[in-house]
Amino acid sequence: MPDCYLPESAAAILVRGMITTIGFDADDTLWHNESIFEAAHAKYCALLSRWHDAATVDRTLFATEMRNLELYGYGIKAHALSCIETAIELTEGDIRAAEIREIIAGAKEMLDHPVELLNGAAEVVPVLAQSHALWLITKGDLRDQERKLAKSGLAGHFARCEIVSEKNVETYARLLHRLPVRPDQFLMVGNSLKSDILPTLDLGAFAVLIPYHLLWQGEKVAATPPLANDRFFQLPSLRDLPALVARLDFTTAE
Amino acid sequence: MPDCYLPESAAAILVRGMITTIGFDADDTLWHNESIFEAAHAKYCALLSRWHDAATVDRTLFATEMRNLELYGYGIKAHALSCIETAIELTEGDIRAAEIREIIAGAKEMLDHPVELLNGAAEVVPVLAQSHALWLITKGDLRDQERKLAKSGLAGHFARCEIVSEKNVETYARLLHRLPVRPDQFLMVGNSLKSDILPTLDLGAFAVLIPYHLLWQGEKVAATPPLANDRFFQLPSLRDLPALVARLDFTTAE
Repeated sequence: MPDCYLPESAAAILVRGMITTIGFDADDTLWHNESIFEAAHAKYCALLSRWHDAATVDRTLFATEMRNLELYGYGIKAHALSCIETAIELTEGDIRAAEIREIIAGAKEMLDHPVELLNGAAEVVPVLAQSHALWLITKGDLRDQERKLAKSGLAGHFARCEIVSEKNVETYARLLHRLPVRPDQFLMVGNSLKSDILPTLDLGAFAVLIPYHLLWQGEKVAATPPLANDRFFQLPSLRDLPALVARLDFTTAE
Repeated sequence: MPDCYLPESAAAILVRGMITTIGFDADDTLWHNESIFEAAHAKYCALLSRWHDAATVDRTLFATEMRNLELYGYGIKAHALSCIETAIELTEGDIRAAEIREIIAGAKEMLDHPVELLNGAAEVVPVLAQSHALWLITKGDLRDQERKLAKSGLAGHFARCEIVSEKNVETYARLLHRLPVRPDQFLMVGNSLKSDILPTLDLGAFAVLIPYHLLWQGEKVAATPPLANDRFFQLPSLRDLPALVARLDFTTAE
């Protein structure tokens, strides 16, 4: 599919009002995250390379994470516990305590990692905050996400920060209902079809996919971008978002 | 201090309106929590008893948890990671992987533990929900607290559930401002002076302490119950709460 997708029919969208509220995913939408996970994962594979190749480690760790997801939820602490469990399983208990300590140290490094904004975030967020209510809507560890928002320097531009345990249709419906904001006044921006795009489109909101070059296996879905949906857009960069929002506001205000 | 504390001056409280909203802490206020931690902790001490006595384990684990608090936050996953770190430290790396697996299994058991309501919760919450907006305000793991609320059978009685990373004056101010609810229309119920009572009194709200027979060391504060504050109350049981609320509403409506 093309890097940038704007449906021809955008001008004909039948809406009842302008977009008032823009939701932003955080990890890999406003700041780098998966790249930090991948760097930590390479160290983890190196630690286990005496026993298994990286493909086996990948496969087993992902299976452990999926098995633990319901109990643990998302985030670095959940990931660390699954890494330790997988390491014990894959080494049949041969792994030494000092090596497990390295896994914990790796998790702490990730939690303490500087926040590196994605290209355009520092400019686009303040600009859009002048005309729209901005929400941060993210999943993961409560404290970790709050810390990243604080470190990002962007916190002051967000009217609300919602850290949720799962980003599905029910979650978005609850958040929009609470304010309240009508779905056709809401636009969600994110890098994950599964968590940011498909559930918000299902609700009748607008959604903008801005892919990141890495995507965690747990976010992958069989579905392809819903090109036929004229509330769906795809952009190559956050930098292109203000122009799209202006165009949508112009269209919806007609 | 007496088991039940109701200031004589309650009838003279200067307020501008009735209490509209009641916030409930969750762990050890609506359901048992610390007792589950203590049972798991006894197993953890037994695991490490080859190396150290329980007092040393207690002291070292608590120091680890406090050191990690800023990075990890509260909850069972944070606790489990600190338990593993402490076990490696206290055994100077001698602990075996199979024993670390037991610590992880213990954390999973805690996450999967049935929710056991405290005496009175099943009756008092539905009664108060008929006359007041109820909020659950708790800290800990996002998914764990949501799961406990779902398992408790009480979720339908709460207008909102707020899982926060820290319960301090800033947190309560933000929550009350958001709705909005004036502090003098808000009453917080909980078992922790530090997290439930002192910050809400500071804001000008009402607060009811219902002590639990166990209190995690991290919740202990040097302060004594603020008996001189006529917005502070202490009750021996949740069962006594509706009568107090009725009395306060009568008083504040005068």
